[in-house]
Amino acid sequence: MEDDLKTSMQDIGKKARQAALELAVSSGENRSRAITLMKEKLASIKDVLFKANREDLKEAEADGLEGPMLKRLTINEKVFNYVLSRLTALATLDDPLGRVLEGFTRPDGLHVERISVPIGVIAVIYESRPNVTPDAASVCIKSGNAVILRGGSESLRTNIVLADALREAVTEAGLPANAVQMVRTNDREAVTHLLKMDQFIDVIIPRGGKGLIRKIAGGTNIPVIKHYEGICHLYLAEDAPMDWALDLSVNSKCQSIEVCNALETLLVDAGAADRLLPELSKRFRDKGVELRGCAETLKILMDAVPATEEDWRTEYLAPILSVKVVNGLAEAVRHINTYGSGHTDGIVTKSLDKARRFVEGVDSASVMVNASTRLSGGGDYGLGAVVGISTDKIHARGPVGPMNLTSYKWVAYGQGHLRE
Amino acid sequence: MEDDLKTSMQDIGKKARQAALELAVSSGENRSRAITLMKEKLASIKDVLFKANREDLKEAEADGLEGPMLKRLTINEKVFNYVLSRLTALATLDDPLGRVLEGFTRPDGLHVERISVPIGVIAVIYESRPNVTPDAASVCIKSGNAVILRGGSESLRTNIVLADALREAVTEAGLPANAVQMVRTNDREAVTHLLKMDQFIDVIIPRGGKGLIRKIAGGTNIPVIKHYEGICHLYLAEDAPMDWALDLSVNSKCQSIEVCNALETLLVDAGAADRLLPELSKRFRDKGVELRGCAETLKILMDAVPATEEDWRTEYLAPILSVKVVNGLAEAVRHINTYGSGHTDGIVTKSLDKARRFVEGVDSASVMVNASTRLSGGGDYGLGAVVGISTDKIHARGPVGPMNLTSYKWVAYGQGHLRE
Repeated sequence: MEDDLKTSMQDIGKKARQAALELAVSSGENRSRAITLMKEKLASIKDVLFKANREDLKEAEADGLEGPMLKRLTINEKVFNYVLSRLTALATLDDPLGRVLEGFTRPDGLHVERISVPIGVIAVIYESRPNVTPDAASVCIKSGNAVILRGGSESLRTNIVLADALREAVTEAGLPANAVQMVRTNDREAVTHLLKMDQFIDVIIPRGGKGLIRKIAGGTNIPVIKHYEGICHLYLAEDAPMDWALDLSVNSKCQSIEVCNALETLLVDAGAADRLLPELSKRFRDKGVELRGCAETLKILMDAVPATEEDWRTEYLAPILSVKVVNGLAEAVRHINTYGSGHTDGIVTKSLDKARRFVEGVDSASVMVNASTRLSGGGDYGLGAVVGISTDKIHARGPVGPMNLTSYKWVAYGQGHLRE
Repeated sequence: MEDDLKTSMQDIGKKARQAALELAVSSGENRSRAITLMKEKLASIKDVLFKANREDLKEAEADGLEGPMLKRLTINEKVFNYVLSRLTALATLDDPLGRVLEGFTRPDGLHVERISVPIGVIAVIYESRPNVTPDAASVCIKSGNAVILRGGSESLRTNIVLADALREAVTEAGLPANAVQMVRTNDREAVTHLLKMDQFIDVIIPRGGKGLIRKIAGGTNIPVIKHYEGICHLYLAEDAPMDWALDLSVNSKCQSIEVCNALETLLVDAGAADRLLPELSKRFRDKGVELRGCAETLKILMDAVPATEEDWRTEYLAPILSVKVVNGLAEAVRHINTYGSGHTDGIVTKSLDKARRFVEGVDSASVMVNASTRLSGGGDYGLGAVVGISTDKIHARGPVGPMNLTSYKWVAYGQGHLRE
């Protein structure tokens, strides 16, 4: 039984490697057509998909899943339409392969170019959210990589329906069906086997809780692009205009509560606290968001809950916001670099100098100036769709779109050029 | 004793992390000045350095080291001058940090830029070649990364002299001395500790034999940029001009024998074998290079040694060249992708179509068209100096210069931009 699983996982690996070789020489036109067909196939199986998803949800509820976990598992009209819209965006993007990343002619006449190429085989291991299935598959196909998908056990029905449609699209576009493979078992040992298959898998992208990601990164030789949590900050500088301060704070926190680039901690400059905090408190009360404040915040907002040290380190993914009054920009940057997770952090200011110092000082994948933290996704950066938002500094940082799943080759053109 | 080592290694890690924070906000001017000072310091301690190197060599010889190993350990006038020349090239390169890698304004007016930033702390673990010490230190400093160096035990005296001079240069340029740290013990356990220090080290670059690299990649959570061997090919197409075929083959093989981008296997198109092989044989005989041929080669060069399957997989790093006659470009590409190491492979042809098909088909870090395989180094690609030549596809592929040791951050500038 154990050996059977190993054999079937190895088989998936071999097939992915073979598909990757074919994808590497496929045309951008065919890969783009596959994305368009993915959209059409998914649109055509909407009823079947929603039915499978309802069954997954019913079982998950029976198993005691609730709140954000259940919400993440749900494919409703909104999620479905968003998935389709990303496929549309992806289909019309330029081919991320064969791009000349740089090119120059050396003094001796050697002409050198650096050209984007696919990485090879990518394994995406994720929990819950079944919309990762079409996102990951489409981004990988667009960038000429074969993908092995291993979704959460609660969403297996949904994922199988999705994967079947995606494979059909890929085949119809003239690409190998095995460019997209889904691990169709809930056996946890399947992941253990995947982690050992360094001869077949070039990079692993885990999506899910910190525990899952740590376990995967610690248990494999294969490079891992990590997507840790988002403890995102917005710093309202002393000169922050009231309207931007309010709108950006509320949008960053409330536009979607349980996502990684939602706001978790609001930093208010001491010079603006009296002016801004009462209005902020009103807006967040209307939205049903609980504020947890530092001692200085509590002096102004006497009804706020006192924040503990733990609050600064917490990704709530819930209608709770921690609020801290800071003495100047340097303290805001220090707080962010100490407690943040390097995901997305923003400033609200009209000062060019403050903006520059904040951008340089904050060590995060995305730094937002007068823009909602919720805009640090791939769509808003023009990437079409993304596999996730990396908090790593190696290979890919921030939203991971098709162009971030490429490697490159150097090509040198000479006329009999020798080394002296 | 064991605990002492652990403490002192952890201490190196902490100091490196602190230095990295300071480097991240250092000016490109200061980092460039540090490189110039490295060159001046090294030039001023040349006698001391050569003396230390002679002592290392004497001990290594007494320990039975010989041939290429001994040569790699040697710092002579040629190696020394080359090191200095790279520092000069590096000092005058533009700052690899703060570059706008891409920038655009989205339809909604959000202006997005992707800006290069340092990675953080880089550990370089290497055998033998002490010239890696100044190469790695200078490339890391240029790119704003702190570096922990762990050289080979045979070159400890040489490395300590080098590291002291490099640290002096860094300090004099106003940068933290701990931006460059050398592990000053030959205790093998030091590496074991390094591999566990994922809280302090962002990426490890091992340089040395396949065994060392495999062991390191398999024993750590920290991302590793691997530099495997170079089994490099040159394919002489049917139309390869005689002069280029001869000059490029000989230069690729003989300009330096024991380096990773030296030629190991020559592929000769069946349509050109009769024309080229006898002349090639003559040139290589003059250079003292032994030819090991396939059956077809032996029909033309009856004095060649028969090659075995093992020869196609061997990085000789010695005056031996394997020679295979192939039936057309597709077979050449297949041979390279099967037996090569994805390092550097070239073609000699006047045909645009053959060049294009070869460049697209060969899955290697560097593909050379009518240029010596020896030109796939960082100097020839305008990188100044390099830490090595990566055979990985993740993060950095091919020569790893300062710009390849950077990450990036996304910066988005809005005017109160919200997510709908």
